[in-house]
Amino acid sequence: MTDAPRLYLDDLVPGMVLRSGELTVTAEAIKAFARDFDPQPFHLDEAAAEGTFFGGLAASGWHTAALTMRLLVEGGLPLAGGIVGAGMDELRWPRPVRPGDRLRLESEVLEVRPSRSRPNQGLVKARTTTLNQDGEPVQVLVANLVVPRREPMPA
Amino acid sequence: MTDAPRLYLDDLVPGMVLRSGELTVTAEAIKAFARDFDPQPFHLDEAAAEGTFFGGLAASGWHTAALTMRLLVEGGLPLAGGIVGAGMDELRWPRPVRPGDRLRLESEVLEVRPSRSRPNQGLVKARTTTLNQDGEPVQVLVANLVVPRREPMPA
Repeated sequence: MTDAPRLYLDDLVPGMVLRSGELTVTAEAIKAFARDFDPQPFHLDEAAAEGTFFGGLAASGWHTAALTMRLLVEGGLPLAGGIVGAGMDELRWPRPVRPGDRLRLESEVLEVRPSRSRPNQGLVKARTTTLNQDGEPVQVLVANLVVPRREPMPA
Repeated sequence: MTDAPRLYLDDLVPGMVLRSGELTVTAEAIKAFARDFDPQPFHLDEAAAEGTFFGGLAASGWHTAALTMRLLVEGGLPLAGGIVGAGMDELRWPRPVRPGDRLRLESEVLEVRPSRSRPNQGLVKARTTTLNQDGEPVQVLVANLVVPRREPMPA
């Protein structure tokens, strides 16, 4: 969490781009996540990964997704009410995340829709691209997020 | 990893359903994942979660996704070559995962497409539904997976 201003539905317009801080992915973190959630050779061990599809140790895509969530929550998308996903339209991993990669996010607001049934909130569709230190996309996520509206001014 | 037979592209047909083992989600695991990847009040602390959208402690959707991956890898989808995702068409969390929930998977093969450019593999589209102990879906994932073909018989 940061002290940055929190954005309400009313503050968001299509085309707006928000950037996150960054983090570095270590080989140890890749292997620890894999042991807990994705115990396949290409995520667990450098030598075992050599002869596989990935040609070397690579992070689980779900690890990349989880790290992306951390960057969003830590200020990459400072939404009032937090990051509450109502569903994903797209989730792709165009290239692997390798040990030592430095990740950051660019999130673009695609659509802003006030809710008809719930006047105090709405849905925002946003494309969050996770980039490595060379500016190459390692994940593309298009998410629908629940975002509160500002309180109406008292009458 | 299990000793179950491994399935190649040639073994899969649309409509086939595969079932996983199960696992139980503890409050401690929910909080530990949240501390690492999704530090929002509704995933971190029972009391703080009460007044939120979720009305109580709930697992991060990304935790549910990661646990689903573990069940797939541990035999829920025994594909030759492992579980290698080429992209997701859908990822939804229709209801929260709560402490004590017991999760299992049902994966249905939707499409089987041999690759034109790579004769030794193909793409499988599968819908993996994560169910709780009451048989209610907590996650729906439609994934495109890279699956090897059987070696052709020697001439």
